[in-house]
Amino acid sequence: MRTVNVGLIGLGTVGSGVVKIFGWHAGDFRRRAGVDIRLVRFADRNPDRATDLGLPEGSFTGDAFELIGDPDIDIVIELIGGTSVARDVVLAALKAGKSVVTANKALMASHGQEVMDAAAVYGVDIAFEASVGGGIPIISPLKHCLVSNEITSVMGIVNGTTNYMLTRMAEDGLDYDSALAEAQAKGFAEADPTADVDGLDAAAKIAILASIAFNSRVVMSEVPTEGIRSISAADVAYAGEMGYAIKLLAIARRTESGVDIRVHPTMIRSTHPMASVNGVYNAIYVVGDAVGETMFFGEGAGSLPAASAVVGDVIEVARHISRGCLGLVGCTCNEELPIRDIGELETPYYLRFRVVDQPGVFGRVATVFGNHGVSLASVIQKGAEEPTAEIVYVTHRATERAVRAALAEIEDLDIVESVDTVLRVEDL
Amino acid sequence: MRTVNVGLIGLGTVGSGVVKIFGWHAGDFRRRAGVDIRLVRFADRNPDRATDLGLPEGSFTGDAFELIGDPDIDIVIELIGGTSVARDVVLAALKAGKSVVTANKALMASHGQEVMDAAAVYGVDIAFEASVGGGIPIISPLKHCLVSNEITSVMGIVNGTTNYMLTRMAEDGLDYDSALAEAQAKGFAEADPTADVDGLDAAAKIAILASIAFNSRVVMSEVPTEGIRSISAADVAYAGEMGYAIKLLAIARRTESGVDIRVHPTMIRSTHPMASVNGVYNAIYVVGDAVGETMFFGEGAGSLPAASAVVGDVIEVARHISRGCLGLVGCTCNEELPIRDIGELETPYYLRFRVVDQPGVFGRVATVFGNHGVSLASVIQKGAEEPTAEIVYVTHRATERAVRAALAEIEDLDIVESVDTVLRVEDL
Repeated sequence: MRTVNVGLIGLGTVGSGVVKIFGWHAGDFRRRAGVDIRLVRFADRNPDRATDLGLPEGSFTGDAFELIGDPDIDIVIELIGGTSVARDVVLAALKAGKSVVTANKALMASHGQEVMDAAAVYGVDIAFEASVGGGIPIISPLKHCLVSNEITSVMGIVNGTTNYMLTRMAEDGLDYDSALAEAQAKGFAEADPTADVDGLDAAAKIAILASIAFNSRVVMSEVPTEGIRSISAADVAYAGEMGYAIKLLAIARRTESGVDIRVHPTMIRSTHPMASVNGVYNAIYVVGDAVGETMFFGEGAGSLPAASAVVGDVIEVARHISRGCLGLVGCTCNEELPIRDIGELETPYYLRFRVVDQPGVFGRVATVFGNHGVSLASVIQKGAEEPTAEIVYVTHRATERAVRAALAEIEDLDIVESVDTVLRVEDL
Repeated sequence: MRTVNVGLIGLGTVGSGVVKIFGWHAGDFRRRAGVDIRLVRFADRNPDRATDLGLPEGSFTGDAFELIGDPDIDIVIELIGGTSVARDVVLAALKAGKSVVTANKALMASHGQEVMDAAAVYGVDIAFEASVGGGIPIISPLKHCLVSNEITSVMGIVNGTTNYMLTRMAEDGLDYDSALAEAQAKGFAEADPTADVDGLDAAAKIAILASIAFNSRVVMSEVPTEGIRSISAADVAYAGEMGYAIKLLAIARRTESGVDIRVHPTMIRSTHPMASVNGVYNAIYVVGDAVGETMFFGEGAGSLPAASAVVGDVIEVARHISRGCLGLVGCTCNEELPIRDIGELETPYYLRFRVVDQPGVFGRVATVFGNHGVSLASVIQKGAEEPTAEIVYVTHRATERAVRAALAEIEDLDIVESVDTVLRVEDL
């Protein structure tokens, strides 16, 4: 039986999960994959982590490049994260003829082409199932099972932190700050929550998914991104009243004028399967011209779920090594679709304003919308006893460009105190 | 570029979907898979089908074995169904050195070992993603992405016909007969609905899923199977009142005393992700020791969804042929777990009786349960004005054996008119 030696770089949350899974199942892998897969070397900047994990004497190094230079290593697992050291490490490993398994969404979403090109040049595999949706199988299903389809849209709840917060806001009426504090207390949000609450994590993931689904490279910096900081308990409550849930959706659609891709808090009907994906769970919803609607649900983060995907990739690559099948499916970006300007987006909008409560206000606001060709589907007014009133409009389908132009004018009206929330409604 | 020639046997619902997808996307497959995959020959007992599909002159034969004998064919798609002719066709194709793609759940659930052994002997692929869940990727995710896990349970709503019927019973209070008539009128149920409503279709599918998930062969005849004929609108309504949905679940769990596998109408909490899978949609719910809970959702039947999976398999096999990687993942049943006797099942039960409405009835029934060690968690009584009353019991966790023994005695009591429904509650 062929032996495949694996080196693990990065002993943090996911890395320790990988060590655990090998501890439980290395014998099973021999039977299931017909390959003797051994986790033999480890690297991290912090030697204490190796001690804490009880790794075998002499298997640890503080220098990732020393591990990469080890001629006995066949597969390198990169779990450093980020795009600086990790990029150097991954490129060096590929150049050294090692296949690479990574969970690094930022790297794949920003330097995916470079990394995949290098894997092709050196005739090895690069696998990154764990970069999107934690343990949920989604990249492999897109590259294999659903490859017979033209994928028309892929979208999802791909950030557990913000989904937890929005769920708590919907369930118990928490405001944004309380929801964030609770998520931090439970370990679902970082001390600096920027990457999650500002949508950057989701933007990286949808760039990866769109590249695979549409066979056309999209990088993270091309994804228009809005986070959930502007969402209030009031918005969540209004949405509920109207039969909608608010979710931070990462959305990508193939359209005739290019790839419509974006991350923003979105109103979806409460009957849609994604609307009941709550807490830290993730779900990726894929529509193909043959398969119709499909959805992939599970834990999108955490040590063991992400490690499940990493080790799954390792086993797959080990099978390829043992059978001489490396590079079976490399980069599949064989089209060059433009990214559609978000101004061209056409969808209903939810808009919440605070206005001076005086006669004629509705008329003046409605006139501005009308001048820009934006027609209103419904309106809710609350708090009329106060000097200012809260108004919620939902528009018929309108272009982003027209809505933004109308809002710019409306914000300047003396009767308008503030435009508090602008949400897109995804009409699924 | 290598050319891979494909022969299609069976031009029914799924077969015509395969022809359509090749018509749309054959050019895309060349780019995505780097292989020129051609659908070149067709067989069916009915030549009119070839005419209706407008197949090229000379590409059709009425004799499946003539197609198999064609030395130019690399991959045979078997869409005949059943286990007699289809088995001969699949074994002959494998023996002739052709890889086989099939949607045939009955064949794989009854003769899976024989078919997979033959594929191994002749060094070719056998792929059957479409045999479970239509277009939903589930077999490949289990064999690849989730292979790093010990799967502890796999269960699902894998029959769209019965899920449609149960959904209509829950939504509009239809009785069984009306729900069946409506499903037949809409083309979701056959004129003879036996395979669906008696759970046989679901039993085949869970045998396949369990074999893969637990690496241990389970055949369809080993699956204790109950259909939905006994379910009344009253049961669905009672379940709803108690916060449950009734679904025809196919269930397989790895337990210390073997594989717990069964198909029956099941009460699940209405908050579980599977409870909101409605209409003809399917969902397969998988729990692994590392990945945690995952769910795969989509259209479980129909021409194009099933064909999506068939063509996905064809592309995968074509990649293997072009790269000399056939047999990369063959049979993974490397354990021999026993099937646990259903008598050992321990779960809460929902029981609906009709009793004579007289004092002491509750006590006598409760005494019999108590004698068998079955304790009652809740009871509902309705229709007390009539000479007979309907009683619904929900038990605490009890063994199937104890509940069956108690019911046998209770049925013999003079005060009991009928035991109408026995449902297992899956405590997810």
